[in-house]
Amino acid sequence: MAGRFYTFAVYRIGMAGLTSIERLGEFGLIDHLTKRFPLPQAPLLTGIGDDAAVYLPAAGKAQVVTTDLLLEGVHFDLGYTPLRHLGYKAVAVNVSDLAAMNADPVGITVSFGVSSRFSVEALEELYAGIAHACEAYGVQLLGGDTSSSRQGLVLSVTAVGEAHPGQITYRHGARPGDLICVSGDVGAAYAGLMVLEREKAVFKDRPDLQPDLTSYDYVVGRLLRPEARLDIVRLLRELGVQPTAMMDVSDGIASELHHLCRQSSCGAQIYAHKIPIDYQTVAVAEEFKLPPVAFALNGGEDYELIFTVPIGQFDTIKSARDFAVIGHMTPDAGIIQLVSEGGEAVDIEAQGWNHFTSTP
Amino acid sequence: MAGRFYTFAVYRIGMAGLTSIERLGEFGLIDHLTKRFPLPQAPLLTGIGDDAAVYLPAAGKAQVVTTDLLLEGVHFDLGYTPLRHLGYKAVAVNVSDLAAMNADPVGITVSFGVSSRFSVEALEELYAGIAHACEAYGVQLLGGDTSSSRQGLVLSVTAVGEAHPGQITYRHGARPGDLICVSGDVGAAYAGLMVLEREKAVFKDRPDLQPDLTSYDYVVGRLLRPEARLDIVRLLRELGVQPTAMMDVSDGIASELHHLCRQSSCGAQIYAHKIPIDYQTVAVAEEFKLPPVAFALNGGEDYELIFTVPIGQFDTIKSARDFAVIGHMTPDAGIIQLVSEGGEAVDIEAQGWNHFTSTP
Repeated sequence: MAGRFYTFAVYRIGMAGLTSIERLGEFGLIDHLTKRFPLPQAPLLTGIGDDAAVYLPAAGKAQVVTTDLLLEGVHFDLGYTPLRHLGYKAVAVNVSDLAAMNADPVGITVSFGVSSRFSVEALEELYAGIAHACEAYGVQLLGGDTSSSRQGLVLSVTAVGEAHPGQITYRHGARPGDLICVSGDVGAAYAGLMVLEREKAVFKDRPDLQPDLTSYDYVVGRLLRPEARLDIVRLLRELGVQPTAMMDVSDGIASELHHLCRQSSCGAQIYAHKIPIDYQTVAVAEEFKLPPVAFALNGGEDYELIFTVPIGQFDTIKSARDFAVIGHMTPDAGIIQLVSEGGEAVDIEAQGWNHFTSTP
Repeated sequence: MAGRFYTFAVYRIGMAGLTSIERLGEFGLIDHLTKRFPLPQAPLLTGIGDDAAVYLPAAGKAQVVTTDLLLEGVHFDLGYTPLRHLGYKAVAVNVSDLAAMNADPVGITVSFGVSSRFSVEALEELYAGIAHACEAYGVQLLGGDTSSSRQGLVLSVTAVGEAHPGQITYRHGARPGDLICVSGDVGAAYAGLMVLEREKAVFKDRPDLQPDLTSYDYVVGRLLRPEARLDIVRLLRELGVQPTAMMDVSDGIASELHHLCRQSSCGAQIYAHKIPIDYQTVAVAEEFKLPPVAFALNGGEDYELIFTVPIGQFDTIKSARDFAVIGHMTPDAGIIQLVSEGGEAVDIEAQGWNHFTSTP
């Protein structure tokens, strides 16, 4: 992802010289935005243009359904979020939930509400991102709903996928002794958010000064355009490893561990120095005089996978470079501890994100 | 539906003496709102509480997916929309889309965004309506997403259903000569909207005067708490009638006929005096000095079914009291005519609802 995407307020979402939505009308707009998508192909029988989409599930496979609501001012700030990335992310976060179930994506519905300040060209950007993600994850556009909004931009995506029932990884399957693994690195998206919010405040006072985000390209990219880790799910299948439990990291690993432990009636111990944190995340944490591990534990929106595997599979996974073993499950239900490099154990609270309080 | 539901601004969505959402937090709120729902039962394997819901589709059945976005100030006005009805309606409009495909509902996801002005008690009302509709239509709650909103109330519902592939009724299957049928009556929801908007304007000036809606109970009920016509779909199956094409009436029958004709490469002729219009709708139209047929053609949100059947099945359907034959398809692609009782034919424009213009 090129750094040039991360400039501030460059997107002309407004009207000057652009096409108004009203000119196309609702049905014209849907036609216009969805024409870039390929025609329905198997297993999809019909997509956009009827009362509902229709697809044929693979024989014997369970259907997996998830949904995410993205609201302007709560989940994204259009001051620094390119609409193309937002479209990509709206798909990715849903596919990430399917990946967390060890399911393969089939299709998505996309509903949006926009105020008349949005141009058709702005929505084209949004849909370019959606189309890109659909292609990247092999998922088809099933349909959606389109509305004006008196408020900000509203995006609602639902994804359906499928998996053999025995292959599905729930949150409740972890057992004491299981190894806890995390894909990629964590805390980066929160670091990106910290940087963007800081630069936004600067930009507000000095709109003539475009922030230089070159040295933050990775963390900013992690926030604005995360990837669903379908690749990890497929790697595990290749390795013949079936996780006992799995989640995606949307609220920070502390919160996710609390879910896993509560639903699996276990505890967990993780090792601070084993948690994969990118050097840019560490650098940002230092700038803000905060411990990097706090970003990893309580920062959200990483969309990595956290999963548990039986200890007997350690030899199979130990050389995998796409995920790290960060600890193990314990029999002490509800007790989640972070062990420092010096061997000191402290309890971890599930802070996570709470969209109902004013700050994450 | 008792008239007492239709009073103005009676719902205390605010905080005085009520429970704030922040007090429960996101996960606490989800637990609280969903505890009234039954535990997942077949074909649902897991519902709320994991990254995604999982269900087992019936062997050989196609899966049908639809979604609707409901935004405060665009789709509903909380000044006169009880939250309990809104919850019911959010489910009903999605089930209606499944019915229009001749599919049976399986599950729904419900996402909402609310500002902090909403109390937990207000959301309980919303969820009471959702639970009621789930029970009425035999559909299970699969999951959802919950967020704060800086704007108004945002509701996004996705429904999944299933049907044998050969049983699905698309919009493109109508043939010249097919009879056009409409269930129930049409135009009533629009009449209800006209009345409520008028009374709202009065109420704004004189908040001490509660409007008497007794003589408008039917039309107001049609707007605020519509039903999905699953019963019609099942009646047709009992009669052994497979519609050649079907849609639900969400934008007015003029708009729906245009869709059916365009996708089926046909025209249509309908007879003004055959269109089923309730006497209350007629009365409201007369109060507003508008032709009742305009309400039926261009008023939206009736959620009745419009469908076509081969003329050879006329004897089977002619005695059905739950739907009326209003006309027939013609070979004149794109030409849709309204025939008056005197035999005069006029072309019908597809006005429909356009949420991107200021008025419906």
